Amino acid sequence: MALDKNIAVLIGGVGGAKLASGLVEAAAPERLSFIVNTGDDFWRLGLKICPDLDTLMYTLAGLVNLECGWGVADDSTVTLDSLARHYQIQPWFRLGDKDLATHLLRTHWLRQGRSLTEVTTCLAERLGLRATLLPMCDDEVPTIVDTLDRGELGFQEYFVKYAWAPVIRAIRHLNCEKARLSEQVRKALLEADIVLIAPSNPWLSLAPILAIPGLRELLERLAAPVVAVTPIIAGEAVKGPTAKIMRELGLDVSAREVARYYGGIIDGFVDDLRNEPFETEGLRIVQLDTLMIDQADKVALARALLEWTGSWTR
Amino acid sequence: MALDKNIAVLIGGVGGAKLASGLVEAAAPERLSFIVNTGDDFWRLGLKICPDLDTLMYTLAGLVNLECGWGVADDSTVTLDSLARHYQIQPWFRLGDKDLATHLLRTHWLRQGRSLTEVTTCLAERLGLRATLLPMCDDEVPTIVDTLDRGELGFQEYFVKYAWAPVIRAIRHLNCEKARLSEQVRKALLEADIVLIAPSNPWLSLAPILAIPGLRELLERLAAPVVAVTPIIAGEAVKGPTAKIMRELGLDVSAREVARYYGGIIDGFVDDLRNEPFETEGLRIVQLDTLMIDQADKVALARALLEWTGSWTR
Repeated sequence: MALDKNIAVLIGGVGGAKLASGLVEAAAPERLSFIVNTGDDFWRLGLKICPDLDTLMYTLAGLVNLECGWGVADDSTVTLDSLARHYQIQPWFRLGDKDLATHLLRTHWLRQGRSLTEVTTCLAERLGLRATLLPMCDDEVPTIVDTLDRGELGFQEYFVKYAWAPVIRAIRHLNCEKARLSEQVRKALLEADIVLIAPSNPWLSLAPILAIPGLRELLERLAAPVVAVTPIIAGEAVKGPTAKIMRELGLDVSAREVARYYGGIIDGFVDDLRNEPFETEGLRIVQLDTLMIDQADKVALARALLEWTGSWTR
Repeated sequence: MALDKNIAVLIGGVGGAKLASGLVEAAAPERLSFIVNTGDDFWRLGLKICPDLDTLMYTLAGLVNLECGWGVADDSTVTLDSLARHYQIQPWFRLGDKDLATHLLRTHWLRQGRSLTEVTTCLAERLGLRATLLPMCDDEVPTIVDTLDRGELGFQEYFVKYAWAPVIRAIRHLNCEKARLSEQVRKALLEADIVLIAPSNPWLSLAPILAIPGLRELLERLAAPVVAVTPIIAGEAVKGPTAKIMRELGLDVSAREVARYYGGIIDGFVDDLRNEPFETEGLRIVQLDTLMIDQADKVALARALLEWTGSWTR
């Protein structure tokens, strides 16, 4: 079983969180480290918002709004409504009142001089999480989306304000050349018995993590196997703009194309059994049911992929 | 009538706000300037809270919770409850969700480098206020209460956490020697045809304002009359710790003692008709009904005191 293994997971928001909630049941949560995309992070009304960290945190704490996949369940928007009604501040990013508790506390602690890594650890501890949550780095590396229709957009503008309608020309990670791998991320990867790449959007959620100087090289020389899970099922993404972006970037919308994107990093690839099988030199591939609807699906996928990789090493 | 007069009012929170809501009806609100105590201001969870400015702002905007005299009516505490429940942050200062909109926006604007005076003007404008609201200064001059029972306390600790139970030995205004009179406050006073001192707590709400270097001297040399309204009615304060503090400071709990405290500054004193009449050399005194229960009482008092002062100059 996987209970004696250290597992590190590179992960984004909603899609990744599904696998994460399977993993905490299928493996020992104390030995799980999630290395989370922070390219989506932004400041709003003086508050630091970390959408992917929050989604994962709320999911693992059992607080998440399961209908959206993000935000806190049964939340209200009294503060936001007051800002609109009394102060004519029209918010395009929904911030619930329960959710605000997180942003207030995070921002308060950050302003006291603590790093995002420390702050995230404190928040996760207070929420009772047993797994480790790590921001990909402590530097701000905002994702900028260059679009055909509207030029360069901040990630949340692209994703929320314009509902990922604009056509993407390119994606860049501002200041990524100056970002530094944190000791905690380095340690989690070096001590991992297996590294997973969650079925998050490779271009929007994983690319920012892989853009941190040294991270790609570190993955390449790890003894532990690195295994990615397909975000593409039957030519489409389960949710979100992965397939749309692949088309806009001139790529085939297929699991093979995703595996190619991770080429050089991954040793294994979990494909979906609905996809057309493919082979790639030097890559172990398994076909599993990767469509996660309910909690049982999530645990089943986590168990199956850990069993599959448990039998082999790099 | 008082519609052609510029009126400046030195003012604290709840007690003062009652007179303020009478004044905006009895006079031309565009010619009213409120110079508000900020000695109670504090930071909480990274947010700048200005209790007296908020009370006055919410009162004049018709948003105030009339039962408490402060806070926004029909407010909830979802964010605060989440902080307690999920993050074990036990708040002793109640912050409503609607109220949070103000604190978020104020703090955001302050962090952008704007002064508290500018920020207050912007908030008041968005709330549709026609009167001018001015913080007493842009510097932080926190009121420190030295108590017999618990030593030195920050104002909100004394007032809210310990519900003004500790016995006061002394009150000081931290950093007041470095505070500077703002141009806006100076202008409001110089252009005033009459200056009022609201029936707020003289030691907790007015003393911080009078402690700003230059303010007392400016009041003394103004051509306009300065008139205070008694906060003591029949040997008691209507609300709050004024009478208790007078006793603790070894003072007689009387309007005469309040008039003595303002001695050298005031030309007129509005006493309550329930009080024992007194005379003071060089001080004009009138006895009016200063107990303000409903809006009609507030307007009546404002009208009566403006009529009284309208007939005389310094």
